[in-house]
Amino acid sequence: MTDFEKTRSLFYLPEGIIYLDGNSLGPLPLAAKDRVARLMTEEWGELLIKGWNKAGWMTMPRRIGDRVGRLIGAEPGTVVMGDTLSIKVYQALASALELVPRRKVVLSDSGNFPSDLYMAEGLIGSLGRGHELKIVEPEEVEAAIDETVAVLMLTEVDYRTGRLHDMKTLTKKAHSVGAIAVWDLAHTAGALPVDLAGAEADFAVGCTYKYLNGGPGAPAFIYVAPRHAEKVRPALSGWLGHESPFAFELGYRPGGGIDRMRVGTPPILGLAALDAALDAWEGVDMQDVRRQSIRLCDLFVAEVEERCPSLKLGSPRDGERRGSQISFLHEEGYAIMQALIARGVIGDFRAPNAIRFGFTPLYIGEQDVIKAVDILQDIMTNRLWDTAEYRQRALVT
Amino acid sequence: MTDFEKTRSLFYLPEGIIYLDGNSLGPLPLAAKDRVARLMTEEWGELLIKGWNKAGWMTMPRRIGDRVGRLIGAEPGTVVMGDTLSIKVYQALASALELVPRRKVVLSDSGNFPSDLYMAEGLIGSLGRGHELKIVEPEEVEAAIDETVAVLMLTEVDYRTGRLHDMKTLTKKAHSVGAIAVWDLAHTAGALPVDLAGAEADFAVGCTYKYLNGGPGAPAFIYVAPRHAEKVRPALSGWLGHESPFAFELGYRPGGGIDRMRVGTPPILGLAALDAALDAWEGVDMQDVRRQSIRLCDLFVAEVEERCPSLKLGSPRDGERRGSQISFLHEEGYAIMQALIARGVIGDFRAPNAIRFGFTPLYIGEQDVIKAVDILQDIMTNRLWDTAEYRQRALVT
Repeated sequence: MTDFEKTRSLFYLPEGIIYLDGNSLGPLPLAAKDRVARLMTEEWGELLIKGWNKAGWMTMPRRIGDRVGRLIGAEPGTVVMGDTLSIKVYQALASALELVPRRKVVLSDSGNFPSDLYMAEGLIGSLGRGHELKIVEPEEVEAAIDETVAVLMLTEVDYRTGRLHDMKTLTKKAHSVGAIAVWDLAHTAGALPVDLAGAEADFAVGCTYKYLNGGPGAPAFIYVAPRHAEKVRPALSGWLGHESPFAFELGYRPGGGIDRMRVGTPPILGLAALDAALDAWEGVDMQDVRRQSIRLCDLFVAEVEERCPSLKLGSPRDGERRGSQISFLHEEGYAIMQALIARGVIGDFRAPNAIRFGFTPLYIGEQDVIKAVDILQDIMTNRLWDTAEYRQRALVT
Repeated sequence: MTDFEKTRSLFYLPEGIIYLDGNSLGPLPLAAKDRVARLMTEEWGELLIKGWNKAGWMTMPRRIGDRVGRLIGAEPGTVVMGDTLSIKVYQALASALELVPRRKVVLSDSGNFPSDLYMAEGLIGSLGRGHELKIVEPEEVEAAIDETVAVLMLTEVDYRTGRLHDMKTLTKKAHSVGAIAVWDLAHTAGALPVDLAGAEADFAVGCTYKYLNGGPGAPAFIYVAPRHAEKVRPALSGWLGHESPFAFELGYRPGGGIDRMRVGTPPILGLAALDAALDAWEGVDMQDVRRQSIRLCDLFVAEVEERCPSLKLGSPRDGERRGSQISFLHEEGYAIMQALIARGVIGDFRAPNAIRFGFTPLYIGEQDVIKAVDILQDIMTNRLWDTAEYRQRALVT
């Protein structure tokens, strides 16, 4: 059994804060603080350029990729870290489209994170080959998978509602019509069990600053199924994806397998923080995380619905059909979230009207849920959100 | 006058090391260590998600972009940080090609860093519109600029030899035939004065882990001339380049000016280290840096040529025609560099036969140059490089 008391002790959680926004930015793992401090002084400071070899910086993208891979059901050697999630979406989609050159439709849904759609739009515009980005409603996706579809590109968990797609079924359907499936695991990795190999996903991408607690702007990851890895031509053909980067040849030769998805010089500070953050997952059973996540989410839904009747559930009620987050809808959602944050309950707001809470068993327990609802109830009952200050919108994430 | 004693005191330089590889990875600025430690505890740790607004994380790419911009002669508001240099090359070239849609030639030279060529190759392959990457010798570039050229894409300072292109003249020639100029400043920014605005460069890109001392894998930058900034369609159209990222619209609308060159969530750890590293440039006059750099390089060349006759100069002899680095050629260059490193003189090796040394006035002085040559002379005179250990090649950077 996973020891959640122990995992909680691995994080720094500020006094008086109930942090229900680990689905957007995970809290600081104490090990990350130490690891980065060592990187700065003992590695960068002392080793200087030699750090690339002696401190293993150059191999971090693959080594850490394997650590992430274990949490998402990826075969060893199929995941590599680097860049941002948006860049990894572009890489995956560009490669996927080349595998089905005669088809023109990229199928996605309105619950996908907008950046995925924007990157697809940018890629399609650059290609100039008449591709079309077709965006349907999430519940219409399965029916829309037909023989015109080149690539099915979905985010497994909807960033607004937490609605969970059935990766295995949709991938199977995509394959049955000859399409390729690209999955974005931004709100999945570290939140629930994923079985990329078992689902026969073709490509997957994700970020690591949410449930994996890698820190603000932590590097992204990309997975390429072994059956495709030696076939795909990288659109972003950078030197570290070259078969022999330090030969400094004038022409590009793709590296073996997943290595060709490397692009430029890897961001070592971010990788070091992430590497340490992943220590928290040692000895953690993702099935335990899932069970506890559903328990916490269910408790939150039940308590809020009983005590704050003006808030309308914006997430699937069935725990099996959602990720590890709960949204409630209210037209004054922005102000309500500001009032919550002022009282130490940190969630976030997603336009137009969703207040969003992430439940992360590694460091959040039932007591936190109850206390958060106590505060939310007070805010709703006494209209504490109804001030000019809280209604004044700022840049939000 | 720039006070180089003072700037030297801002860096951590390990005892017994003469660091002549700041052209590959700058040493640790003491301020960066402190800044990153504060970021980890006071910002990520305490502010959690609120750091994006309260600690100014979201605006760092533009704010730091302006700091870099001042060192390269860029107008305020024309530079933004993010991603890797390879990605920025792709962005710049993709945008540049769209400005001259009827032409097909991307002109570059064999002295360009291979990743720039690889990224161009990947982009051209994706576009599939018959573009051609034409690679000539560095001294043939000027003559090769003709009316077939869509984009002239060059690295100002040759990573192997230090040979310096004349940015102003070549840009002018490019414009005279209707071509667009994209400059890679990887080995220029922080090494010598650059006047992007004065040279009328169209696009520029660069990295910050070399002369700008931002740390391993520090974020890259991109410059877009104001006359193009509102016209270019970003190929890598990520959410943070959107006019209104937090409206979460399904369609992409490019942000104003340089903002559209932002892509995904910025790497905050790397940006924080870089921000602190840039403090070392306050009060530094780039003309002083250039004069001192030429003095150090000239001294090194004179001493090596006098004392180590088997080493052949691989860089331009005229200081005005090279960057801030010197290469010497020797068929046993790899082993020679290993022997130097073992004795505390850190430079690097570039295949097939160059030993390369960077001279960085902010923390390297004449005494360092003399001591380095003393050791090099000992190694060459007594063939101390000629051991199995030093000849055993490892992954090098």
